[in-house]
Amino acid sequence: MQRFQRIGILAHPLRPATAPLAQTVARSLEQHGITTWTRSVWDAVRVRSLVRGSDLVIAIGGDGAMLRAARACAPENVPVLGINTGYLGFLTEISPEEWENSLPALLEGRYWIEERMMIRCEVRRNGVPVIASEALNDVVISRGAIAKLVQLETYIDGGWTTTYYCDGLIVATPTGSTAYALAAGGPILPPELKNILVVPVAPHLSMDRPMVLSQGATVEVVVEPHTVAEVVLTVDGELLASMKTLDQVVIWASDSVSRFVRLRDRNYFYRSLLDRLEPRVPSRPGQNRLGNSPGSGQNLP
Amino acid sequence: MQRFQRIGILAHPLRPATAPLAQTVARSLEQHGITTWTRSVWDAVRVRSLVRGSDLVIAIGGDGAMLRAARACAPENVPVLGINTGYLGFLTEISPEEWENSLPALLEGRYWIEERMMIRCEVRRNGVPVIASEALNDVVISRGAIAKLVQLETYIDGGWTTTYYCDGLIVATPTGSTAYALAAGGPILPPELKNILVVPVAPHLSMDRPMVLSQGATVEVVVEPHTVAEVVLTVDGELLASMKTLDQVVIWASDSVSRFVRLRDRNYFYRSLLDRLEPRVPSRPGQNRLGNSPGSGQNLP
Amino acid sequence: MQRFQRIGILAHPLRPATAPLAQTVARSLEQHGITTWTRSVWDAVRVRSLVRGSDLVIAIGGDGAMLRAARACAPENVPVLGINTGYLGFLTEISPEEWENSLPALLEGRYWIEERMMIRCEVRRNGVPVIASEALNDVVISRGAIAKLVQLETYIDGGWTTTYYCDGLIVATPTGSTAYALAAGGPILPPELKNILVVPVAPHLSMDRPMVLSQGATVEVVVEPHTVAEVVLTVDGELLASMKTLDQVVIWASDSVSRFVRLRDRNYFYRSLLDRLEPRVPSRPGQNRLGNSPGSGQNLP
Amino acid sequence: MQRFQRIGILAHPLRPATAPLAQTVARSLEQHGITTWTRSVWDAVRVRSLVRGSDLVIAIGGDGAMLRAARACAPENVPVLGINTGYLGFLTEISPEEWENSLPALLEGRYWIEERMMIRCEVRRNGVPVIASEALNDVVISRGAIAKLVQLETYIDGGWTTTYYCDGLIVATPTGSTAYALAAGGPILPPELKNILVVPVAPHLSMDRPMVLSQGATVEVVVEPHTVAEVVLTVDGELLASMKTLDQVVIWASDSVSRFVRLRDRNYFYRSLLDRLEPRVPSRPGQNRLGNSPGSGQNLP
Repeated sequence: MQRFQRIGILAHPLRPATAPLAQTVARSLEQHGITTWTRSVWDAVRVRSLVRGSDLVIAIGGDGAMLRAARACAPENVPVLGINTGYLGFLTEISPEEWENSLPALLEGRYWIEERMMIRCEVRRNGVPVIASEALNDVVISRGAIAKLVQLETYIDGGWTTTYYCDGLIVATPTGSTAYALAAGGPILPPELKNILVVPVAPHLSMDRPMVLSQGATVEVVVEPHTVAEVVLTVDGELLASMKTLDQVVIWASDSVSRFVRLRDRNYFYRSLLDRLEPRVPSRPGQNRLGNSPGSGQNLP
Repeated sequence: MQRFQRIGILAHPLRPATAPLAQTVARSLEQHGITTWTRSVWDAVRVRSLVRGSDLVIAIGGDGAMLRAARACAPENVPVLGINTGYLGFLTEISPEEWENSLPALLEGRYWIEERMMIRCEVRRNGVPVIASEALNDVVISRGAIAKLVQLETYIDGGWTTTYYCDGLIVATPTGSTAYALAAGGPILPPELKNILVVPVAPHLSMDRPMVLSQGATVEVVVEPHTVAEVVLTVDGELLASMKTLDQVVIWASDSVSRFVRLRDRNYFYRSLLDRLEPRVPSRPGQNRLGNSPGSGQNLP
Repeated sequence: MQRFQRIGILAHPLRPATAPLAQTVARSLEQHGITTWTRSVWDAVRVRSLVRGSDLVIAIGGDGAMLRAARACAPENVPVLGINTGYLGFLTEISPEEWENSLPALLEGRYWIEERMMIRCEVRRNGVPVIASEALNDVVISRGAIAKLVQLETYIDGGWTTTYYCDGLIVATPTGSTAYALAAGGPILPPELKNILVVPVAPHLSMDRPMVLSQGATVEVVVEPHTVAEVVLTVDGELLASMKTLDQVVIWASDSVSRFVRLRDRNYFYRSLLDRLEPRVPSRPGQNRLGNSPGSGQNLP
Repeated sequence: MQRFQRIGILAHPLRPATAPLAQTVARSLEQHGITTWTRSVWDAVRVRSLVRGSDLVIAIGGDGAMLRAARACAPENVPVLGINTGYLGFLTEISPEEWENSLPALLEGRYWIEERMMIRCEVRRNGVPVIASEALNDVVISRGAIAKLVQLETYIDGGWTTTYYCDGLIVATPTGSTAYALAAGGPILPPELKNILVVPVAPHLSMDRPMVLSQGATVEVVVEPHTVAEVVLTVDGELLASMKTLDQVVIWASDSVSRFVRLRDRNYFYRSLLDRLEPRVPSRPGQNRLGNSPGSGQNLP
């Protein structure tokens, strides 16, 4: 069992509940002899050296805070525990109320680490890399403010696949499959998968099906010369770059991996998903049945 | 039969093929004793007085030119004939090559007028109307450049319906059902219908079904106070206004109606639609069968 | 105000809660001097003469009971009040617990009548009508037991539209838009509309968009000669006929109209819909806002 | 390079073009000293001993013939070459006209073998296996002839996931992602993937998103006790069993793998897919660009 010596706290800087919670968390950790530091999660990229010397980072905020913390911690192999003070909290692990009761499990090592693949994107202008980033959720190439079609040539593993006429194209990880890609009609991939998901947003008279690619795939997206709309590149919901026609975005599986501390059991994903996704119909006969499958005690041949 | 005395030409100002075609069209009309005028379709709103004294407007360009011409001509009740020099040409009637052969039918009145409903939108800030417009295709309230969710409270006939968390909300006419609304997953409405169509774009964990309303319905969309994204209002693909939180957009059926000159027969719509929409699979057994239904000669009880 | 003299009760014959409720309802009506009769809703078509002499029919069961009662009562112009002992209860008006409190409103005329369009279908073999029926929800032409594609040529208003390669084709009323058509991806039409909705189920490489037609439209579906799968015709969820290749199904708006007694206010539809349809996400900021729109006191220009 | 000594031919027994083609193929192979045998592809399971002693099987027919041939050949590790005399031919490799020109490449070993994962399903009644099968495309648990909902409890890796209320549930391989699963709204998975795809057909007010699972996943589907509809189990489009309530279907990745002989280059999949899937719109600017990506000569970091 690993003993924590130094834990960082990355907190959302604006939500009112976050600052006092960060203090509470820091104080309770220090009472157990653990050194702590606290920074705004918006400075996550600037605290890499702090992250590097830490055994764990606790992110306090919503899924946006988790995404930022994950991108800062993944290259340093530091795991992240999320406390949800936001809305949906797909990525966080506990609520503020659960902190006190979760602490013993955390300190005694009664948790598991969930690894989630990330993707890397690189923008090339005239063949020269100009900017790059990693993403835990998705890389989105899309129209700017005006609701006009963008034309995006797409190549998978170097071969031309199709030209999308659409609002945008989402290239997502399994983690991102429950975020923007879900809104655009994509399938759900449980977080342990290593596939790359490609989903067009509002495709007009062009290829309109999501595609699921292997971990080793490379996706290249070129802004078609006839595109008149402004085109922007968004990474995990944050603007990375404005794009010009003929700019290329190349996306592939990153070497970095996000590591999340999990206190819930390993089947938490589907339950958590369906709590958010199923319609609010009144419960039906048979729907309340929970627990393991009738045959789960049997071995498969 | 109506005899044309004065015909206006509204031509796309940039496409190379458009200017010479406008000259050809003007010359051939003048040879039949018809007075003509020619303007850029981008000036359509500024030529209202010219439009007012004309019997017909010929729009030369793509669907964008048709939309502009239609918005200029509808309030004056002047019909529009579209010659397609653009790409899809859903709204235009003939190709440039067909002009010469179509002229006799046009002059001899062998055409019909297709009426298409329009919608009107009005933006209200603190309850005061600040800008208004008519649309032949659609009114879209959507995110600006950054791919962030907007929160849109929607009221139908004054009653609260739902809050959309989405990239945008399309309120469309039947004409618009084959444009952006189609890309966003909406149903197809033939152009003679008088319904109002409501389609969310990339809705996230909120109401995700298109709705079809009656002609008399009023749709109000309020930008929710928690929306942090930039919100813009687009009418027929052109930016009308930037919106603030609590701004209201009210949309209802316009009193104006677009009138298109049609030389094809009255069933043209489905054939034209499916030529664009069906997949490019090789023809299958039974698929080439055309013409009237086996029972079309029978009266229904 | 109409005074009820004779009220029929059509009750689901198998659900345990239904028979005692039917007795309670009958007794309370008779205490107010109203004559009653009670039959199984499965005999609805055989009790037409009873229906004919009645002022109201109370259907006790789920949506299936409502559909049967509606088909029996519509031709006689007798309104139906539904008491829900089933699951979803989209069509019913009150729960069993609400019966006692609803009775005064019912007897004193404090209700309104909601009219809902119906469609009529007729099967023709070699051009000769062989069977016909009315539907409140939908007419479905679909594969039989084996999961094989059926090929369905479709004609709208006598013109060929497309050939569907699919599991089935749903032709629905606005009422049916929240039933099977919804599951197959169709849009929602509020019940006061008069449109006809056409939705393919699992279309394979063929036209895959729902279409919304005008009230006056006629839809003809012909089982293509190459279809090898068994094809069946289902009306409001009940098997009407087995079909052969070249059989035609013709569908158009019925002269009959279903009339439902409503005690809730006229805006009930969207609220009731979204209670069933929206995802079960935790409530978000801004989502709980209810009531009328901020601008609803203003008149539209 | 492998030298073929014995090649089997499995031909569709009814299509008129198939029998003469089978003779042509057999004759040309025998002219090169190769022993051949020819059987109906409908007898594929009964010719296992013939298959076992062969180096290659040539399937002549459509995708149905390929599916049958694949299921017969996979357990014996014998590769299959498909000649398309059917309609879509997603799985076949050449047309009848290409046979003569393809023969040298085949005999000289200028081909590659594409491996495609298969799934295995087993039906358990009262916990006891009663029937099992392998599938190259999909296993479908669905309603019988009447268009009624089935209720299917679904367990992934032994944990309860959701109850589907639907026409059916498709559990598919990547190969099957372009078959029935595509019609039901599923994503596309290129054939080299090893994921299991789960897609509900016409889900009603229940979980409606496709899910993509890992190769190691086990899916269990239990027919819910409240299901009143007839439920059938279909494997690769053929009826395997009628199911009762509480019957379980367990599905997991098979040990067998289908091996297809490919003469086209390794990027054939997307091109072939989009030829069938993209809409038939006229070609647009930028759409005709083919070949490799602008950056395909560059190595990725």
